Amino acid sequence: MQKMNEIKVMRDPIHGYIHIEYKLIWDCINAKEFQRLRRIHQLGANFQVYPTAEHSRFSHSLGVYEIVRRMVNEIESLSTILTEYEKITVMLAGLLHDVGHGPFSHAFEHVSEFDHEEYTAKIILENSEINKVLKTVDNNLPHDVVKIIQHTHPRAILNQIVSAQLDADRMDYLLRDSYFTATSYGNFDLERILRTLRVRKLAYDEEQLVVKYSGIHGVEDYIMARYQMYWQVYFHPVARSYETIFIQLFRRLKDIYQENKAYFHDLKILVPFLRQSKPTIQEHYQLDESGLLYCCALISEKTDNIAKDLASRLLNRKLFQYITNTPENKKLILKQLKDMNLDEKYYLRSESVKTNAYTPYKGQKIFVELLDGEIVELEKASTIVDAITKGEVKQEGILFYPKEGVDDGSN
Amino acid sequence: MQKMNEIKVMRDPIHGYIHIEYKLIWDCINAKEFQRLRRIHQLGANFQVYPTAEHSRFSHSLGVYEIVRRMVNEIESLSTILTEYEKITVMLAGLLHDVGHGPFSHAFEHVSEFDHEEYTAKIILENSEINKVLKTVDNNLPHDVVKIIQHTHPRAILNQIVSAQLDADRMDYLLRDSYFTATSYGNFDLERILRTLRVRKLAYDEEQLVVKYSGIHGVEDYIMARYQMYWQVYFHPVARSYETIFIQLFRRLKDIYQENKAYFHDLKILVPFLRQSKPTIQEHYQLDESGLLYCCALISEKTDNIAKDLASRLLNRKLFQYITNTPENKKLILKQLKDMNLDEKYYLRSESVKTNAYTPYKGQKIFVELLDGEIVELEKASTIVDAITKGEVKQEGILFYPKEGVDDGSN
Amino acid sequence: MQKMNEIKVMRDPIHGYIHIEYKLIWDCINAKEFQRLRRIHQLGANFQVYPTAEHSRFSHSLGVYEIVRRMVNEIESLSTILTEYEKITVMLAGLLHDVGHGPFSHAFEHVSEFDHEEYTAKIILENSEINKVLKTVDNNLPHDVVKIIQHTHPRAILNQIVSAQLDADRMDYLLRDSYFTATSYGNFDLERILRTLRVRKLAYDEEQLVVKYSGIHGVEDYIMARYQMYWQVYFHPVARSYETIFIQLFRRLKDIYQENKAYFHDLKILVPFLRQSKPTIQEHYQLDESGLLYCCALISEKTDNIAKDLASRLLNRKLFQYITNTPENKKLILKQLKDMNLDEKYYLRSESVKTNAYTPYKGQKIFVELLDGEIVELEKASTIVDAITKGEVKQEGILFYPKEGVDDGSN
Amino acid sequence: MQKMNEIKVMRDPIHGYIHIEYKLIWDCINAKEFQRLRRIHQLGANFQVYPTAEHSRFSHSLGVYEIVRRMVNEIESLSTILTEYEKITVMLAGLLHDVGHGPFSHAFEHVSEFDHEEYTAKIILENSEINKVLKTVDNNLPHDVVKIIQHTHPRAILNQIVSAQLDADRMDYLLRDSYFTATSYGNFDLERILRTLRVRKLAYDEEQLVVKYSGIHGVEDYIMARYQMYWQVYFHPVARSYETIFIQLFRRLKDIYQENKAYFHDLKILVPFLRQSKPTIQEHYQLDESGLLYCCALISEKTDNIAKDLASRLLNRKLFQYITNTPENKKLILKQLKDMNLDEKYYLRSESVKTNAYTPYKGQKIFVELLDGEIVELEKASTIVDAITKGEVKQEGILFYPKEGVDDGSN
Repeated sequence: MQKMNEIKVMRDPIHGYIHIEYKLIWDCINAKEFQRLRRIHQLGANFQVYPTAEHSRFSHSLGVYEIVRRMVNEIESLSTILTEYEKITVMLAGLLHDVGHGPFSHAFEHVSEFDHEEYTAKIILENSEINKVLKTVDNNLPHDVVKIIQHTHPRAILNQIVSAQLDADRMDYLLRDSYFTATSYGNFDLERILRTLRVRKLAYDEEQLVVKYSGIHGVEDYIMARYQMYWQVYFHPVARSYETIFIQLFRRLKDIYQENKAYFHDLKILVPFLRQSKPTIQEHYQLDESGLLYCCALISEKTDNIAKDLASRLLNRKLFQYITNTPENKKLILKQLKDMNLDEKYYLRSESVKTNAYTPYKGQKIFVELLDGEIVELEKASTIVDAITKGEVKQEGILFYPKEGVDDGSN
Repeated sequence: MQKMNEIKVMRDPIHGYIHIEYKLIWDCINAKEFQRLRRIHQLGANFQVYPTAEHSRFSHSLGVYEIVRRMVNEIESLSTILTEYEKITVMLAGLLHDVGHGPFSHAFEHVSEFDHEEYTAKIILENSEINKVLKTVDNNLPHDVVKIIQHTHPRAILNQIVSAQLDADRMDYLLRDSYFTATSYGNFDLERILRTLRVRKLAYDEEQLVVKYSGIHGVEDYIMARYQMYWQVYFHPVARSYETIFIQLFRRLKDIYQENKAYFHDLKILVPFLRQSKPTIQEHYQLDESGLLYCCALISEKTDNIAKDLASRLLNRKLFQYITNTPENKKLILKQLKDMNLDEKYYLRSESVKTNAYTPYKGQKIFVELLDGEIVELEKASTIVDAITKGEVKQEGILFYPKEGVDDGSN
Repeated sequence: MQKMNEIKVMRDPIHGYIHIEYKLIWDCINAKEFQRLRRIHQLGANFQVYPTAEHSRFSHSLGVYEIVRRMVNEIESLSTILTEYEKITVMLAGLLHDVGHGPFSHAFEHVSEFDHEEYTAKIILENSEINKVLKTVDNNLPHDVVKIIQHTHPRAILNQIVSAQLDADRMDYLLRDSYFTATSYGNFDLERILRTLRVRKLAYDEEQLVVKYSGIHGVEDYIMARYQMYWQVYFHPVARSYETIFIQLFRRLKDIYQENKAYFHDLKILVPFLRQSKPTIQEHYQLDESGLLYCCALISEKTDNIAKDLASRLLNRKLFQYITNTPENKKLILKQLKDMNLDEKYYLRSESVKTNAYTPYKGQKIFVELLDGEIVELEKASTIVDAITKGEVKQEGILFYPKEGVDDGSN
Repeated sequence: MQKMNEIKVMRDPIHGYIHIEYKLIWDCINAKEFQRLRRIHQLGANFQVYPTAEHSRFSHSLGVYEIVRRMVNEIESLSTILTEYEKITVMLAGLLHDVGHGPFSHAFEHVSEFDHEEYTAKIILENSEINKVLKTVDNNLPHDVVKIIQHTHPRAILNQIVSAQLDADRMDYLLRDSYFTATSYGNFDLERILRTLRVRKLAYDEEQLVVKYSGIHGVEDYIMARYQMYWQVYFHPVARSYETIFIQLFRRLKDIYQENKAYFHDLKILVPFLRQSKPTIQEHYQLDESGLLYCCALISEKTDNIAKDLASRLLNRKLFQYITNTPENKKLILKQLKDMNLDEKYYLRSESVKTNAYTPYKGQKIFVELLDGEIVELEKASTIVDAITKGEVKQEGILFYPKEGVDDGSN
């Protein structure tokens, strides 16, 4: 595999440097579908809560790649069992796992039955710059990369590296989101975990990443970091309020589209996401957050009052209020909406989120190698994780709705 | 002046929290012209070099406000001589000093005789949401804020706080840009400097911010941080390459505009920056980086080949190469361009940058209070700054030009 | 109360600066009993595991003081209900709460029925430089300071500030020990917790520090930090091995003292800790870690072979091995000791440690103020803390013993 | 060379982990002469100014070793030209370069013609645990290690790694002292410098470490860090005041020793440093800071009033004042001393310190490889360093003397 004359590096606050050794990796980074990730916020609407959470999926993707690169090189029991082709394939899977994302991705998937994983696969497999780069090296490479991303690669250990309970993706985003939101919650000891990961064989000779017992506190810390980030950042109601408006705007746009296609003459990039048939990957490429916000600017000066209001709210941060979802609260809000002559279809949304710190499930468990060599599930080795998995699941249901006095969203 | 029930805070990695006490400040932050700053990168094209330099002028502006707020509250010799009205005015000046910026601001000013300071003043003084908010408090407030920003306020100390050699603006951006580029160069001891700033009277009773001698090493460090950031970040040739393409694209668009106005039917937001008469503040509001990049996406699919090529280069990071500007190099490149049939008007640009670490000039000196109370210019108190001001000025002239093999821009 | 002309500050990596406003505080810091804390490691034997854990109780005590100072000034509902005298008293309690510690304090208390809290009180109340300083201000001050330290002050809120479940002492040591061991485990968001602490009245008008619901994740993080630091740092078996040798050495010295007082002619500072009657505070003052290690150096060249061996082990890090305490293991080791002709009284020690992350008990609960104003115990407000308190308690029993091949203690 | 089964690691805040691969290195660390370094402060008296500057030469020595280890492994042009034996030799030189230090080393050398470099060599070459460890591997190893430390190894590149203008020793201590003093001054980008170091041949085929031009800003930053640390930390007058008392105490003890040897019956460890003939390495081993401070405690209760006073001052931080050294000031102080009946021999000391940021001198220059491959001196490549080397040298002469009102030493 062709290496470059000199390793290329890019600065990164989480990993110090991102190291790029293979020309193939460098070419993928410079493919236009990957460069597009600079125009998609990593944390979607969270910059509405944490003003500095302005980082993109571009730098996150580089970070995941870097962790994978370190894993396949630095974990000796992994490094020695993988071929160079496998190593490159799994590094590419880390790098490219998010290329299918749309703008404000999580909200977007509520809107349009859009599935970013489907598009990740299509972009890698179909007629794209990325596909072209991969194929120049090996015709099977696109397929092999996609298998890892879809967690169906026959060599299961490759799937685990990119996506499992303790994987390169999650490890990068917790640290990165913590850095850019300026919260300390997502911090854990990445070095310790990397140093204590090993490949072991379970029953039936299945290869499995496990953590040595001496790394268990690092893993406990990571589990808690994940839990805290969910409630402090990912589920923050102010961010979900922004996403709600986004979702409601698309609901409105779909309704308009049914009746008045001319409305969209200067909003062509939106149409593929409103019509029945699925967007092509070229259409997908065209809709990034720059384009979306620009469309909002146009909509905010168009005729439909509901779309106009919702689009302005996104641009100028006139967010919805929120309140616990109880029958009384809902009744009250419905009355208010009626009084303000606002259609609840567009101006009320309920949402419920829940997570606990750690739920092991088939194929996605964390395993620990005890001092005597026995391999057990994490909850058997850690009293604190055991307590957590048996505890109640935290859950929060809320209603989003507009109010004259606009919510201020400070935290 | 109306305070809020509870101080509002926003997280920030540089200052821990941004503290907002006055409703007036909060309302300015929520004005649409201020929210627009979220769509303007603080470092323009630098995210092309440092992938995580994706922070906006929005968070920088909050940071400047926070430093001003601390200065007027924590420096006792300042706190006791300013009225509440003056304190609020200078905090607003810190907050709003950048609202006039356009997309990729420095490049933009090369293009279109656009002056962001002029627009900052217009937005504060004319018919904007910000202006409305300020006037509800006091009719003179917009004018007083603008005076500080323009460095013409009769109480000179107010001007010094926001913009001088050692001011809230510079102090925030050095720390912030350092954090987001993941370089250590811009770091200095803000706490030390804030603790050692004092107001003293010079001859003619002029009020002047001075640094106590015990803070002089903090200032030396700050001077060096500034110098390093210029060469490592602000002047990085890869960022300037991106800006160059941006400048050349606008040059081309202006030429097209002379001949073919229809070309711009779906690029209306660009027109005010191509025609003769100056943009209004409403037109200015509409052009942020989202809109600009979206226009690039449209241009990259339009007819004009030069505009098309340049716009694609911006979107997909096919940057220009660079080389030291010597007569031989220039001759060589001109020949290459001719061979590739490329017009040098759009495909060659020379640029020269220079700075030294510290150049004192009238009204913009840093003063130090010696242990015996005497107040002297920094270079008299610091042997190292003295050496630097007498040293040679570092200077770099380079040529930007395209090449088949596209530059990779790694650092 | 006499303030100083200018606030004095000392640099500190945890708090930025320690701020000292009152001359009284400054004089206490300069009292010889407080300066002695520079010669007592904060983490006892832990520098044997974490080489940089060399910080002293001196800097920790300053840190506790600083947190108390911030609490009584920055928490408005606290600041407004305390008198200046109460504020100073509680700051002093924070500063002085550890002055009674002996060398390798936790080990020391195993040895000699020595109780550091008793000596803290004696030093403040009896004939010491600290006592003199306090009395010059107010004759009752020493007693009032001691009441807070002993958790018996009639105004219970003062006791809570210095020592409870979420107190200045614990908050400082977790952050500080984390910084100096170079582990990330002890990190939590001090700023968030300080911002969300409030004084509220419970039933019977009892004043109580509570955390607002918006700070609950900060508290969860703090609970986990504490748990992790216990297992990763405070209970680290290599540190406990060092302490074990220390304990065994004193056991041997006591036996020697019964038979041969002349042995101690050049070890006078040890005698008060070997004889029956309790040490005076002057005798206590004389034994710091410098003196103790110097005594070890002397012992290592004296006649008694067991004392000689144990003292050399402390100086030159020839530590005991450790193994899980099971009947089989114990039997095995006893046999080995016999073979090596080593007396188990001095060469075998079993120890068991246990802790869970959070155990609420009377008077030492953490309370949370819910959004509707109700005040509940932490475990009612946090599903994760609830799970933890109901989970199993982690426990570890081990045997320490020598071995030819000396343990290396790397982690 | 025998490697260990598993790499051993120790946590470190500067380098993350210290990695130990060779049994030989591990055995040297566990030799008693190396463990003694735990009882010598890295920064001598500086903990009197910066309370947390309590780190030892032990952890610094590990840090130097770690930087050397990275250099010989990670700099390819170095790694490929050195044999395994040379790599181990230079790592040992980094590890052991400070074993000869005495307590409060810099002060100590003023006192007793004691030269720590001489003792470093003796400990490695003579009858010590370290010597025994080295010899088991190769009889020449002690000599080869010493040659590097003494900068006389025939392969000059090895000397440069450990000690030059840009060497492992300085790079570690700047970062480390910055971390433990909680100042930001000593920070620079170690990763950048390590990445850009190369071995090149100068005229006469001399091997030389050079920095690539792309690392020049890292080097400029390092030069400034060094300058700032000198003035902010290493030369801090409060630390020098403590050292002055230490020096004066030894002056007094020497005078006592001439007249009254019995005085020292319980201070035997001091005698080798007071008498004519040089201490043996066993005598050297015995005097660490623990022992020294314990001696101070004894002296503070003995008969000689001057020694008593000076020793108490060290223990309880009753430091000398300081003032600029001018004839008038000196005259004034001499009069005061006379009035207080204090002997100027012991109670007055003048000291002058000076340094500029960078002075190149033969064999100790920093070289830069320009983009075109030419190798030049740093000051030719950096306008700012050029300015600095031509600037004035900063210099400070002060007098130390006691005063009734004791200095408070806050910074």
